[in-house]
Parts: sequence; C-alpha cells; structure tokens
Amino acid sequence: MTKRTFGVIGLAVMGENLALNVESRGFPIAVYNRSPNKTEKFMAERAVDKDIKAAYTVEEFVQLLERPRKILVMVKAGGPVDAVIDELKPLLEAGDMIIDGGNSLYEDTERRTKDLEATGLGFVGMGVSGGEEGALLGPSLMPGGTPTAYKELEPILTKIAAQVEDPDNPACVTFIGPGGAGHYVKMVHNGIEYGDMQLIAEAYDILKNGLGLSNEKLHEVFGQWNQTDELNSFLIEISTDIFAKKDPETGGHLIDYILDAAGQKGTGRWTVMSGLELGVPIPTIYAAVNARVMSSLKEERVAASGQLSGPGKTFSGDVEAWIPKVRDALYCSKMCSYAQGMALIAKASQEFGYDVNLPEIARIWKGGCIIRAGFLDKIKKAFKDNPQLPNLLLAPEFKQSILDRQGPWREVLMLANEMGIAVPAFSSSLDYFDSYRRAVLPQNLTQAQRDYFGAHTYERTDKPRGEFFHTEWLD
Amino acid sequence: MTKRTFGVIGLAVMGENLALNVESRGFPIAVYNRSPNKTEKFMAERAVDKDIKAAYTVEEFVQLLERPRKILVMVKAGGPVDAVIDELKPLLEAGDMIIDGGNSLYEDTERRTKDLEATGLGFVGMGVSGGEEGALLGPSLMPGGTPTAYKELEPILTKIAAQVEDPDNPACVTFIGPGGAGHYVKMVHNGIEYGDMQLIAEAYDILKNGLGLSNEKLHEVFGQWNQTDELNSFLIEISTDIFAKKDPETGGHLIDYILDAAGQKGTGRWTVMSGLELGVPIPTIYAAVNARVMSSLKEERVAASGQLSGPGKTFSGDVEAWIPKVRDALYCSKMCSYAQGMALIAKASQEFGYDVNLPEIARIWKGGCIIRAGFLDKIKKAFKDNPQLPNLLLAPEFKQSILDRQGPWREVLMLANEMGIAVPAFSSSLDYFDSYRRAVLPQNLTQAQRDYFGAHTYERTDKPRGEFFHTEWLD
Repeated sequence: MTKRTFGVIGLAVMGENLALNVESRGFPIAVYNRSPNKTEKFMAERAVDKDIKAAYTVEEFVQLLERPRKILVMVKAGGPVDAVIDELKPLLEAGDMIIDGGNSLYEDTERRTKDLEATGLGFVGMGVSGGEEGALLGPSLMPGGTPTAYKELEPILTKIAAQVEDPDNPACVTFIGPGGAGHYVKMVHNGIEYGDMQLIAEAYDILKNGLGLSNEKLHEVFGQWNQTDELNSFLIEISTDIFAKKDPETGGHLIDYILDAAGQKGTGRWTVMSGLELGVPIPTIYAAVNARVMSSLKEERVAASGQLSGPGKTFSGDVEAWIPKVRDALYCSKMCSYAQGMALIAKASQEFGYDVNLPEIARIWKGGCIIRAGFLDKIKKAFKDNPQLPNLLLAPEFKQSILDRQGPWREVLMLANEMGIAVPAFSSSLDYFDSYRRAVLPQNLTQAQRDYFGAHTYERTDKPRGEFFHTEWLD
Repeated sequence: MTKRTFGVIGLAVMGENLALNVESRGFPIAVYNRSPNKTEKFMAERAVDKDIKAAYTVEEFVQLLERPRKILVMVKAGGPVDAVIDELKPLLEAGDMIIDGGNSLYEDTERRTKDLEATGLGFVGMGVSGGEEGALLGPSLMPGGTPTAYKELEPILTKIAAQVEDPDNPACVTFIGPGGAGHYVKMVHNGIEYGDMQLIAEAYDILKNGLGLSNEKLHEVFGQWNQTDELNSFLIEISTDIFAKKDPETGGHLIDYILDAAGQKGTGRWTVMSGLELGVPIPTIYAAVNARVMSSLKEERVAASGQLSGPGKTFSGDVEAWIPKVRDALYCSKMCSYAQGMALIAKASQEFGYDVNLPEIARIWKGGCIIRAGFLDKIKKAFKDNPQLPNLLLAPEFKQSILDRQGPWREVLMLANEMGIAVPAFSSSLDYFDSYRRAVLPQNLTQAQRDYFGAHTYERTDKPRGEFFHTEWLD
C-alpha cells in the first residue's frame, strides 16, 4: 500500500470534516482516534469509499504516513494536545510535523513550537475558522509556527482553504508568523466574532424592543442590510435566515423560543487579557464577552426584573427613519471593534516578533470564517496602502464614513439610554471613539490621586515625557 | 538580648512603614533587606531610637525572632516572594509563619499556603491597603491563609490596623479565609479602587469639559459632595484637595499641568480575568482598567485628535441644575461598581471555599484603605441583614436610591454622548444596570447564530433548562 500523505488524530466533528476535506482534494488520509469506536463508526459511515485508512494504535498510524509526516491534531485544547504530542514525539523523525488545529492558547503554542523545533520536528499551531461546514468545504486557515513545516503543508492547505475573489491570492490561508502567531490571530478573530455577534444582538434589541419591529420586518431589514457595502457579511446573512425560521413545534418564529443564555470560552477571555497585557484597548470585545456572562445569569435577571424598574419610556418616533440610524450605529460600532482587533494584532506582532502581514489577515478572513464580510477588502486595502497605519479609524477608507455617521450613532445610543435598553458593545464602541480622538483625557486627576495617596509620581504637560514628579499634596 | 516579636523582610517604603507601625504598638522588631545599604540607611535614619534590630543575613534574622516566628515579607510580587520563601523555609521550625504583604496573585498564594502548610509552617497572604501613610499609621488589612497562624498574629494586626467607629469591631482587619482568600479580596478591592477613580475622573471630565466648571468651582463641588451620605469618601476628599493645589512652578493649578497618562498593573487585570473565569460581570471595573490603557496612548491620541472631529455640540443648559445630576450619575455608577465587586467576591468565596464574611469585608474597608467611604456601613448592613443577597442593587438600602436617580443618571450619559465626552465607566455601569434588570436579553439571537454556524445547540424558553436543541437552519 502507498503511504498516506496526511494524517488526522481526533475524530470529533471538526477532525472528521477536515480529514474529509483534505481527502476530497486528492490526498490519501490516515486517521486515528483514542477510542476505537469513534474510528470504526467514521470508517463505516462517512469514510466509506474515501481514500482514508484507519489506524488503531499511534504506532500504526505513524507508520502509515509518508515522510515528512504531516499530522493534524484535532483534540481538546490544553492537556490533551500535550498528551498527543508526547505520544507522537518518540515515533517521529526529523522534518516530520505536527499541526494543532484546535483553539489553543498562543502561549502554549509558543512553548510547543520551541520544544518540537529543538528536536528537529516541525510544529504548526493553526487557527481554523468556519465551524463544521467551513472545515468540510473550505475554512479560513491561520497557520503559524515552523516556517519550513508550513512550506511542506502549503500545497495541501491552499487546496482545502476557502477560495475567494482576490487579485493577490484566492486561498484563505497564509503563513501568519513564527511560534504562536497563528493561534494568536485566531484568538483575536474569535474576539472580533464575539464583538460582531453582540453588536448584531444589540441592533436586534433596539429594533425589536425599542422600535417594535416584528420578526418579518427584522428579516426584511437584515436582508436589506446584507446588500449594503457597510454590513454585507455572513453573520448578517444568517441573522436574516434566522428571523424567518419557523418553529415546527409551536408554529411561531423559532427565535422567540430560544433561551437568552449564551456561553463564553477561552478565546474571548484570552483576547481581553492580552489587550490588557499589551496595553491595547479592546472595550467592544470585552463588552461582547461580558454580555454573554450577563446573559448566563438568567435566573438572577428574572428575579431582579421584578424589583428594578426601568425608565418607563416608550418609543414615539418615526420607525422608518430610525432603522437607518440603527444601521449606522451598528456600522460605526463594528468599525471600532475591528479597529481594536487589528490594533491588538499589530501590537502583538511587534511585541512577539510575529511580523504579521495585516493586509493578508484581512484577506484570509474574506472567506470561510464566521466574520467574513464585504468590508474586509477595504481593511486589506487600508493596511496595504499604509502598513504603519496606527488605527483603522484613521484610514481614508473609514474615517469619513464614521464621521458622517456619528450623529445617528449618538442618537441611537441616547435612545437606548432613555428607554433602558442595555447596549454595552455599542456604548463601549462610542466611548472608544470618543477617547481615542481626545488629545486630553481626565486621567490627570487619576495621576494626581495616585501621587497623593501612593507617591506614584506623575509626568507634566510642560515637561518632556519620562520626567517624574512628586508633590506633597497636603503641604 | 530578648528575642524580637516580629520580623520584616524587604525595606522598600511599605516594608519600612509597616515595621515602624508594628514597633510603635510596642512590639520589638527585626528587619532584613537583601541589599545591606538599604538596611543601614533605615537603621541610621528612620529606625533611630526605635526598638528595631537589623540582621544582615537571613540566618541571623531568623535567630533574632521569638518562636513561633512571625515574618512579614514585603518584596515584589511573583518570583521574589518565592525566592524569599525558599531561603526561609529550611531555617524555620514547625508553627513559624510567613506573611506575604504584597499584591500577590491569589493563585500563587493558594499554592504557597498549601506548600508551607504541608511542611508544618503557616502562611498568611495579606492584602494591605492604604498606601504609604496607611502602612505607617493604620492600614486596612486583608489576611488569609493558615487559620492558626492568623490567630497568633491577630493581637498584632488588630493593633496596627486602622481603627474606625464600629459597634462590632473597630479594627480594620479580619481573617478573610483559607488559602488565597486575603489576596483575592485585596485584588477585588483594587479593582473597585480602579472603578472609583475612573468614575470620579469621568465626573470631573463632564463638569469641566461639559459644564465648563473652573478648578475653584470643582473644589467647591467636590467639597460639598464629600459632605453627602452618598459620596463621602477618601477619594472625593483628596480630589477636593487636588483641585485647590497650586503649582509653585507656574502659579497655576497643579492639576492642569499633570499629564493624562495613567498606568495599570496586575491586580486590575487579574480582577477582570477572574470575573470572566467565574462568570461574574464586572464591566465598570474593566472600563476603569481599560481607560488607563487608553490614557497611556497619549501620542496616538494627540495625533488622532487632529483627524477625528467630535459632534461639535456646546453645553447650553443650567450649570447649577446639572451639577446634582452628575452627582447622581456618579453615585449610581459607583453603586453598580461595588455591586460587581461584592458579587465577584461572593462567587469566588463559593467557588474556592473561602467562606468570606461579606459584612466583615465592608467593615474592614471603612478605614485605612483607599476606597474607605461612608456608604460602606450601608453595604455592611445590607449583607448582614441578608447574607444571601444576590446583588447589592437589590438591597433595601440601595435599590430605591438608584431607582430615584436613574432619570438624571440617564440624562448625564445622554449629555456626554451628545457632546462627545467619553464616559466608559459611567456607561458600563448603566449598561450593567439595564442588563441585570432585564428578564430577557437579546442573546437568543446569539444562541441561534451559534447553533446555525457551529451546531452549538440552544435551550428553549418553553422547555426546562438543561435540555439542548439543534436546528438545521437551512432546511
């Protein structure tokens, strides 16, 4: 038997789908799963008539693969990844490579890359976005780690990735950078995804509970928004579908029967933490992660709702006139969220030596992934035209579009405040905009306080930076 | 020579001041510092004529102490604490105890307590708040760790802590709980401190740049606010002083010459992270930490300010009528911040088995520490009356006071939005309030989206919790 080109360890749905995707591009596959039942089921069902061979021990699996071996690990992030690496390591030979396609913490990937490279093996920490369907038909891939390993993998990854219209390169994959670069960028991608989803939820809340739109009307409005340059995107598109979906059980709209309690996992938190560690403000992304935390306190909220009354205002304006204002508020907030995410990647790239190509990041997010959207083309152009661009809000493509819309954006926030509709991600975005564009913020008072009670010292506006002063405030 | 009752390792200002504080209560002291110059200087200056003996080796230091030895370590959090512990460990005997008085991460304290308890030693991770002056004259102390060690220390700690009027106990110290409980509570204290300082900065910004108040008027307004039940506090008091302080160099007000770039350190970030990990929303605290991050981007903001114009609105209302509205907004936002912090401590207590006594936490924060404030008495009462209180906003003491003020609170936020003044902590607080009191939030859409693209499943409003459903959205 000829050796297999590509191996997959871990046959949960993402592992299965990626294996099937690679196989469908003409590469012979080997698969292995710790529990043999899973492997048997896969071989008996989805892998039937495919060029896929199963192994039931790691040794056998490794022997099936042609050299240099290319092994994609699709197991739970954390300890399980290390366990698989430890099992594989003694069986591999110089030049072989392990790809971790899970949502690993970039610091773990950094460590694993270093460890494996020191033994002559290659390691690629690869972000995979697009959910189950993306994995099967074409995900957005964010591989980082050993450059030579990526070179070996490139022909395969280029074929399995989503394909988009792009003059530079249609395949939604690029080498992100060394060490943990791939998982870092995937982490921020997920942070942006949290932001997008929360901003859409807030727009929905205002339209529904502020302006009183029905699900039919929401379906229509989101359908129209999806036709605009500003908002055309996968998440707006699926929201359009969602508002139309009927519930077979009740005959009503399914959306009205779905419980409002959402979970949040590692990547969202890690993005927030990294922003604080690197000193990059990403308040919209925090607000989005935190809104899920708040949503999960369902019982507490239900109890509180009986005790804490709102402002009791009802909407009396012109609904049709307000819908475009909500659209503008969503667009401006979304821009702030992307500005935050891209600034975070830029800072991490500098700090960790990733040397990330920002236009390439925007390009590979154009297809396959959850945040794919029309305006990523403009983001790509903004960073291509000016690689030193400190913030997306300053790009010619975006600056004027936000300045033109800040009026309605503010109006929508004031309406939400007045009506008692929580808009944490919308307002975090506006506060981001209003802070970023302020030469002087009120933290002079903060610095005075810190010097007063803790002798932390301060800098002066009329002295060079880096000179520190202390005052005896009570003298 | 008689043996010393209490030892201090690390003679930076906090270590020196705590040593002098303990000595002033009648306890003989031993001190040690890694670099002998520091020790010599201390002995030659501040320790002159005090009952303080210096050691120049750790061995000598340990021999100076009576048993069980009580050793306060005041060195930089992280590696240096472990290094000192490793040096001490072989020299100590069963029952001796080490107290870490720095801002250590509670997880490190958890680990160190476990390690030392296993060898028969005691370990107390103790939060110390109050800055330099507090350390010298009476700080708020938050000790956690080995209960028997705390019992030995209690007579000393009770004497050095700040003393307040309180029918239960005047000393601002209590045993917080086992393991890392003390450092956990100190961490959240610091998070609340970030919140308070940022909320005051935003009130200042609105009063100054919105309503156009002079420093003289700010001094007057803050002085009045400090006389109110709602806002009477150390931070409002020192702000009052700050607005009056003249700059000897220019003759102007010093506050106007202080640069608006503030730092943020471990405890603020850790609080945010812990909120996300434990599923407790603390958006005001995040906004406060993040506002410092934003303030530190001074050059970037100055550059952006020339390109991103604001709404260009000027204030035209009645200044005197708006000042109390800003006060109400500050009070309501502050309540939300404390509600978040206390909820976080309650959840951590449950999760980590700390068994924290919340009324006691409010009591020991009444004096010595940076967030000392009149209304902590009410917080104490709220949790004493109802130990199961899920959120401070629902306490009889506070609920009505916020409901009565939500009108002006919303007005102030709308004014800030309209004028382009960033109010991240104010608006995060209102969004917290408006989310917490909502039985139904728009995360049903989030859950629908997650099920659509990732088959993450959802719960239904008409089915019991814990039943999960998946829909094929495109069928």
